[in-house]
Amino acid sequence: MARGRFITLEGGEGVGKSTQARALAAALEARGISVLLTREPGGSAGAEAIRGLLLSGDADRWSTRAEALLFAAARGDHVEKTIMPAVDAGKWVICDRFLDSSRAYQSATGELTDGDIVALHEVGSRGLLPDRTLLLALPGGEAEQRARARDGGMADRIGGRDADFHAAVDAAFVRFAEEEADRFRKIDASGSPDEVTLRLLAALDDWLA
Amino acid sequence: MARGRFITLEGGEGVGKSTQARALAAALEARGISVLLTREPGGSAGAEAIRGLLLSGDADRWSTRAEALLFAAARGDHVEKTIMPAVDAGKWVICDRFLDSSRAYQSATGELTDGDIVALHEVGSRGLLPDRTLLLALPGGEAEQRARARDGGMADRIGGRDADFHAAVDAAFVRFAEEEADRFRKIDASGSPDEVTLRLLAALDDWLA
Repeated sequence: MARGRFITLEGGEGVGKSTQARALAAALEARGISVLLTREPGGSAGAEAIRGLLLSGDADRWSTRAEALLFAAARGDHVEKTIMPAVDAGKWVICDRFLDSSRAYQSATGELTDGDIVALHEVGSRGLLPDRTLLLALPGGEAEQRARARDGGMADRIGGRDADFHAAVDAAFVRFAEEEADRFRKIDASGSPDEVTLRLLAALDDWLA
Repeated sequence: MARGRFITLEGGEGVGKSTQARALAAALEARGISVLLTREPGGSAGAEAIRGLLLSGDADRWSTRAEALLFAAARGDHVEKTIMPAVDAGKWVICDRFLDSSRAYQSATGELTDGDIVALHEVGSRGLLPDRTLLLALPGGEAEQRARARDGGMADRIGGRDADFHAAVDAAFVRFAEEEADRFRKIDASGSPDEVTLRLLAALDDWLA
């Protein structure tokens, strides 16, 4: 049995990650590939329990530090119980958000460094990196409008932060993509959902040929 | 307002930590000292929620790695919300188990190193160390008998491990006390509870004089 692939979708709020993760999974399955679609935080029984702690309650329920540790704990459980068993069984795993979201969001507060988040990932998940990371990016402003339209002005504890914070997150994603050009593919998320899905498939061309 | 003191009680199962933490708190309060008695995992609202995840379920619910991150997250919350505010307000905080329990228990499995646990503590709690750590130790075998008698053969997910594991934990505590002789005081936990409490007070003599 050949090893599968581990693909992550990343990007800020409202760029269409969840929609595109589902569409990409369907498109790969239509090509005869066995796919596991999952998402963070969550994706395993233990990680879903931690997700419940992370996404409920007041905005200041968790400090940046406790939040970073909880995300890393959930990720460790998800990697061990869900992602690696599927990849080892030959599946292509598509994960909606992974380590790079923690790196971008948690270091955007300025309280933790990117090195802190990577250190937690080393302990929690033995430093596992995706085989490929598809970074969805929209022209400035468009993503925020989409997120507002979707949430109707409501947002969860993490989405509901200010514009400067989200700009820092977007800038961090772009920096990661430049620093790890081998792993990342930057995808234009504008246009119709079908157009974006075709761009995602094109970014996996070398594996699909 | 003078800064208070942060004192931890450590040791393996059945050495009488919880009983002695209460007795020490009462003895200090009888001397006019304002005391906060707390324990890990737990001690703040967020940490108690994480404690619920940690101590319930099957023995293999959490990997060693996820467990280490959850303990570190709970500790970060406990330090920020409970311990430091009390110490800053002049109280003496007595904490039943802290970092050294994580170092001893989680590295005793051999999967994580002491350095891993210390790295998590740096991120989660800015590396906060107690002002003094009182290590309760019994002659070999006696602690295990006490724990068995107390639990009636039942044990929680972490207490219920084999004798080799608990021997490795005890050895780790002794090693820490030797390596950090300034912070640690090793306390003989044999004899009556009152005798042990007097030994604990003697180990705080320099602050009580």
